Amino acid sequence: MTTSLHTIETPAALIDVQRMQRNIEHMQARMDAFGVTFRPHVKTAKCISVTQAQMAAGARGITVSTLKEAEQFFAAGITDILYAVGISIDKLPRALALCQRGCDLKLIVDNVDTAHALDDFGKTFNATFEVWIEIDTDGHRSGIKPDDETLLTIARILQESGMTMGGVMTHAGSSYDYHTPEALRAIAEQERAGAVKAAQRLREAGFSCPVVSVGSTPTALSAEHLKGVTEVRAGVYALFDLVMHNVGVCALDDIALSVITTVIGHQEEKGWAIVDAGWMAMSRDRGTQKQTHDFGFGQVCTEDGTVLEGYILSGANQEHGILSHAGETDHDIRNRFPIGTRLRILPNHACATGAQHPHYAALAHDNSIDIWPRFYGW
Amino acid sequence: MTTSLHTIETPAALIDVQRMQRNIEHMQARMDAFGVTFRPHVKTAKCISVTQAQMAAGARGITVSTLKEAEQFFAAGITDILYAVGISIDKLPRALALCQRGCDLKLIVDNVDTAHALDDFGKTFNATFEVWIEIDTDGHRSGIKPDDETLLTIARILQESGMTMGGVMTHAGSSYDYHTPEALRAIAEQERAGAVKAAQRLREAGFSCPVVSVGSTPTALSAEHLKGVTEVRAGVYALFDLVMHNVGVCALDDIALSVITTVIGHQEEKGWAIVDAGWMAMSRDRGTQKQTHDFGFGQVCTEDGTVLEGYILSGANQEHGILSHAGETDHDIRNRFPIGTRLRILPNHACATGAQHPHYAALAHDNSIDIWPRFYGW
Repeated sequence: MTTSLHTIETPAALIDVQRMQRNIEHMQARMDAFGVTFRPHVKTAKCISVTQAQMAAGARGITVSTLKEAEQFFAAGITDILYAVGISIDKLPRALALCQRGCDLKLIVDNVDTAHALDDFGKTFNATFEVWIEIDTDGHRSGIKPDDETLLTIARILQESGMTMGGVMTHAGSSYDYHTPEALRAIAEQERAGAVKAAQRLREAGFSCPVVSVGSTPTALSAEHLKGVTEVRAGVYALFDLVMHNVGVCALDDIALSVITTVIGHQEEKGWAIVDAGWMAMSRDRGTQKQTHDFGFGQVCTEDGTVLEGYILSGANQEHGILSHAGETDHDIRNRFPIGTRLRILPNHACATGAQHPHYAALAHDNSIDIWPRFYGW
Repeated sequence: MTTSLHTIETPAALIDVQRMQRNIEHMQARMDAFGVTFRPHVKTAKCISVTQAQMAAGARGITVSTLKEAEQFFAAGITDILYAVGISIDKLPRALALCQRGCDLKLIVDNVDTAHALDDFGKTFNATFEVWIEIDTDGHRSGIKPDDETLLTIARILQESGMTMGGVMTHAGSSYDYHTPEALRAIAEQERAGAVKAAQRLREAGFSCPVVSVGSTPTALSAEHLKGVTEVRAGVYALFDLVMHNVGVCALDDIALSVITTVIGHQEEKGWAIVDAGWMAMSRDRGTQKQTHDFGFGQVCTEDGTVLEGYILSGANQEHGILSHAGETDHDIRNRFPIGTRLRILPNHACATGAQHPHYAALAHDNSIDIWPRFYGW
């Protein structure tokens, strides 16, 4: 039996390839218009086929969140890789092995202790790395502030130890917390200005800083200009999700990832249909809980993708989802969604939902289904 | 280099085998004392080694949440398997294939439509299954109420279609919502009484009902007696987690699962240490958020497992965790947890955290580390 949308066993992660392609091309065209290179973050899908589509559209290099991703994508032929999590010293042997096999791997650092440890490692193993300095432009996580003296101290340690000074990078992850165009434009400008300032300080102090790398999906889609920036990174834009919809950077019908599920029971007096997609299929991500519209564990759509407004996955156990109307009790739930009904659920967070699945069912324009493996672990 | 607790690359899921063994033996001894058989739910760890320890301690058969689990554990030599999610018709060919290979697989059903569909499938493929009827004893999810007329209707359909009437099963999942011994004893008694009542109704109507199966970790550990029950199921008890600690059925030092992580940065003015265990390593589960003690994304311990009271993973991005003191800003965070410090984080929810990892590092009494694979997907 040929696999089709109607026969694939549930629960399954589905990628609408047309939507994905549209999202990828839109972002690339925007970056081309800004005159910056684009380095997609491949942690969202961890899937060679998705990344090949990004590269084919014009992406230059990739961003990864684990050395496992670096290894997998390097094996698939991609050499220009930014490992965008502050390097920890125990991971240096593995990073070095990748470099020695020909990978153009760039590491990031945001503190003096790690810079010294890099220096020690380099001396011990006669190794050099290309290192970028991580800048904190919004206080949400890691990095050093653009005007922090530490910036120059780190640069000095790296330069003296013979590391290649690749540039600066920042990620304004707090952009996920906003939902108006004005606020998004402001955080995008803050991200840009902070990274550019850090680069200027490095250059004025005599250090090389060829790359100024910024990005998050909301800021990449909201920036008014990118003066001084050389490259942009973004990840979730390729698939999008309900969190991004609430942020305001995609429509519901831009969301390219969903989970196909089957109705397996009802609790009529409560207005519940029970489906075979629980949190194991959707992830435990409740990212829309604190946003303007809470979609529970996901937005319910028909099997062909039509949004069923008001119907959400209101609860989830490991392999059971509770489907109900967000507003009122639907006492007709059993007739509306009979046993065996197949549905699509749009996820809160594409990165988290994808991570629950060993592969994607990639649905093409002609309704054929291709199986795209994805990997996990570290 | 031999893998040890101090060298295993982070983030990694660690099982303290002594704690696990103690948890398994304690539960089995309790069930033995009640004179009931014990059928562990293997969805928590999805790991052959963990389940072998459960079987060695005296478990009889297993409970699974997916057919993938059934296939994997059957391949490992376990034949008596309860698939404890309402069967959906599209999965029957795969269930039948397992039975034909010699698996003693039991299915569950809680509605007339599925019973009819089972009958149709049976006639078409000349197949019979052992079927248990799912009973709803606490309104938290699936099942039919013990006094619902549908119970006898389903039994009649199954009997007439030649299916083997295995018995009744229930899971009082709402037990997770309580945290006093009195409330837990009450929900355990409600679970027991509901299942026994359903079995009595079936037997009085002339149907066979050999098995009366109940269970959840909190009720299994709280029941005062199990009269009329023939078997108990529980899953998370083998590893435990912070949610179970808040429920009150385990101490912190009973928790056998943790995530090993490394400090990779600081934000001193905020009192943050940044670690390399984000939500990809911990899961997005925030199950303690609405409980008496909110542990954020996890409780921080030293590498050797000593609880560092007050220190939690207060935030998590995909590969970054934010470690801070839950009460006050620790301005000495950089000296307390220098770059490279290795820590253990106890998880909110063992089932969800385990699912993020391809394998466990199993730490034995002699401090040796064994790698125990786990699987995922459907």
